[in-house]
Amino acid sequence: MNIVGVIVEYNPFHNGHAYHLKKAREETGADLVIAVMSGNFLQRGEPALLSKWARAEMALKGGVDIVFELPYQFAVQKAETFAKGAVEILYKAGCNSICFGSESGSTANFHATLRYIKKHNQLFQQQIKHHIEKGVSYPKAMSLAFQDLPFDEEIVDLSKPNNILGFQYMKAIDDHGFDMKVYTIKRKNADYHDEHFSSQTIASATSIRKALFSEKNEMAQIKQYVPDHTFQLLTQYKNEFGQLHSWENYWPYLRYKLLQTNQEELKAIYEVEEGLENRLISYALYADSFKDFMKKIKTKRYTWTRLQRTCVHILTNAKKSDMKQPKASYLRLLGMTEKGRHYLNKFKHQSDIPIVSKLSPFYNNQIELDIRSSRVYSLGAGLAFQTKLLQTEFHHPPIYLSQKQTDSFPN
Amino acid sequence: MNIVGVIVEYNPFHNGHAYHLKKAREETGADLVIAVMSGNFLQRGEPALLSKWARAEMALKGGVDIVFELPYQFAVQKAETFAKGAVEILYKAGCNSICFGSESGSTANFHATLRYIKKHNQLFQQQIKHHIEKGVSYPKAMSLAFQDLPFDEEIVDLSKPNNILGFQYMKAIDDHGFDMKVYTIKRKNADYHDEHFSSQTIASATSIRKALFSEKNEMAQIKQYVPDHTFQLLTQYKNEFGQLHSWENYWPYLRYKLLQTNQEELKAIYEVEEGLENRLISYALYADSFKDFMKKIKTKRYTWTRLQRTCVHILTNAKKSDMKQPKASYLRLLGMTEKGRHYLNKFKHQSDIPIVSKLSPFYNNQIELDIRSSRVYSLGAGLAFQTKLLQTEFHHPPIYLSQKQTDSFPN
Repeated sequence: MNIVGVIVEYNPFHNGHAYHLKKAREETGADLVIAVMSGNFLQRGEPALLSKWARAEMALKGGVDIVFELPYQFAVQKAETFAKGAVEILYKAGCNSICFGSESGSTANFHATLRYIKKHNQLFQQQIKHHIEKGVSYPKAMSLAFQDLPFDEEIVDLSKPNNILGFQYMKAIDDHGFDMKVYTIKRKNADYHDEHFSSQTIASATSIRKALFSEKNEMAQIKQYVPDHTFQLLTQYKNEFGQLHSWENYWPYLRYKLLQTNQEELKAIYEVEEGLENRLISYALYADSFKDFMKKIKTKRYTWTRLQRTCVHILTNAKKSDMKQPKASYLRLLGMTEKGRHYLNKFKHQSDIPIVSKLSPFYNNQIELDIRSSRVYSLGAGLAFQTKLLQTEFHHPPIYLSQKQTDSFPN
Repeated sequence: MNIVGVIVEYNPFHNGHAYHLKKAREETGADLVIAVMSGNFLQRGEPALLSKWARAEMALKGGVDIVFELPYQFAVQKAETFAKGAVEILYKAGCNSICFGSESGSTANFHATLRYIKKHNQLFQQQIKHHIEKGVSYPKAMSLAFQDLPFDEEIVDLSKPNNILGFQYMKAIDDHGFDMKVYTIKRKNADYHDEHFSSQTIASATSIRKALFSEKNEMAQIKQYVPDHTFQLLTQYKNEFGQLHSWENYWPYLRYKLLQTNQEELKAIYEVEEGLENRLISYALYADSFKDFMKKIKTKRYTWTRLQRTCVHILTNAKKSDMKQPKASYLRLLGMTEKGRHYLNKFKHQSDIPIVSKLSPFYNNQIELDIRSSRVYSLGAGLAFQTKLLQTEFHHPPIYLSQKQTDSFPN
């Protein structure tokens, strides 16, 4: 069976994602699409707009057959660890290929880049170290080190965010020694970080989120950039849980956590390093919003996303000891189509890690973090809806779409 | 110099307190009144309605000359520890007497009770143990054990809340071996726990707080039970910090804290004993308000106030290691009249512990808890006012009332 894996966050699902899924099916000729999706907190250190359940539903309605959750230990991490975990989950779920979007769009060039970096690895690592010593962040140092390497026209530009992620997926497959084919689709129109709408139908998730939280709060603005089902699910979520989630909803909790903790406790948190704890505690006293806080704590040494991830770890109480050398130990099922279910019914007998569709009978340290972070995430719903959202972690069954439901999709 | 000490919370200051201060001056003939006042969190395990600064101002305007803060280590404690700390602070501040309100009103009977309990101590302790083993709370066991003792008509009824506190003050003076005279004034009209107004001018603080948080929120209702300055300060505080403080303001933080912690961390918190941590964590998932939470966790074994204090310790992250064998190590000055200042100018040279009127030059583990709890307390102000309230802990100077201001008081 030909199964392609995709690595997603769908925050929210939009037309660009639908395009990617369509092309992925076409190019790989896959019978089945499995997505591994970040849970409630994302790689850039942000709470997702909507819970993982709502986003899993978006994924299924958008053309994915099975959605597994990327455990927190991998999801709220720098690109390299994120990629390692995501690729491992897809491999363990039975995918024989992955397909990712990139600015480059050339699979051959990605392969060339991997060979090229391996060849120049010593120089590359030296240059990274050299730039870090000058006080820049790791991703910046990597991008600069890359530019220091001898010119080769076949390699992809590793200063572009989706190229970086794609490169990390390939490196992870290579490091793990997985037998998986790689495909890449050139991203259409929107730049990852675009804050403004620039096309008729494709917009970046960043610009869509910006519109959703704009003062006018005009849902209608985003209608042309997302499938109808996304639009419906966003509206429905707002009714069901009072609001969409943003960092500002969690700022009172983060501030409280920082004000009642001590330096030793804070230093036990993952990614709190090198005196950052003092900086975080003192600015918590003076910042009136999360945005204000981030601006105050930002230095050249750390990227914005690295600091946001650190804030997520503080918020969820993810300690250094919780985040050590993660290895995928389960497949947490968030949703499936009827086709997906057929596959899982057979696959579950041969999977070497448990497929978790009900939380109660399964427990380990890795899933404990998923549960804890989901509980904290629930406190970002409207005040009157938090208890309801809290219950979903244990009591929500995987989303299921029958053949009839998937057949009715327009494409 | 004849100085009387009073032990107060003023939550808020009302006519009963004014009456007590007037009688205390009359009976003791004191030249100066020093109050030791709980800070932002109170003995019954509740946040104070208004910050310690506002309540210190009420105290000065009500007739107190100097207000010192009772450190958190003593303030949020059972009666015995509370009394020990309060009496120690007053003694170290130079008081040669204390005067407390009680249901009994007879100083002679309090002395008789102290002698009586000392005489029957073995039996008394045995009976306390006996009742605790039957599963009742400590205060309940003490009250029952007291009733088991041979009858003596001179002793005071230790089932009454103010009698219990008074008895603990006397016991603390006796234990410490302090040379301090004791006076008690019979409380007028209102019972401590009264929830309803029953007199024309005297009402319990409980009934006043109830009126302040009633749905109608009618400030006018309380006007006849409090001095004008209390009424003004309450109104002013609401304007300045958005709202009065109640447990419900802190419920989201307590819930968050419980949802992101683990059992080991929770067991390190003061007063979290005997599997209480599991109970607290599981009910945090289901309770929609603090009141709802308290009702769910309440058992016969613990009193309501004991559980509320435990919740305060969780909220402020007060650990077992933070709360060990407290001894007063400073006098934190919250306010003084001109007369109070004259006294302190001389007294400061002979005090054997520092008088802290500015936080920055002084620091130890005991005051660290006062600071930390004040920071947490600030998060109970209206969202837009929290940063302002946070600043007061370090930047608010002691309240000062000049001779001219105190001279203008009606009584």
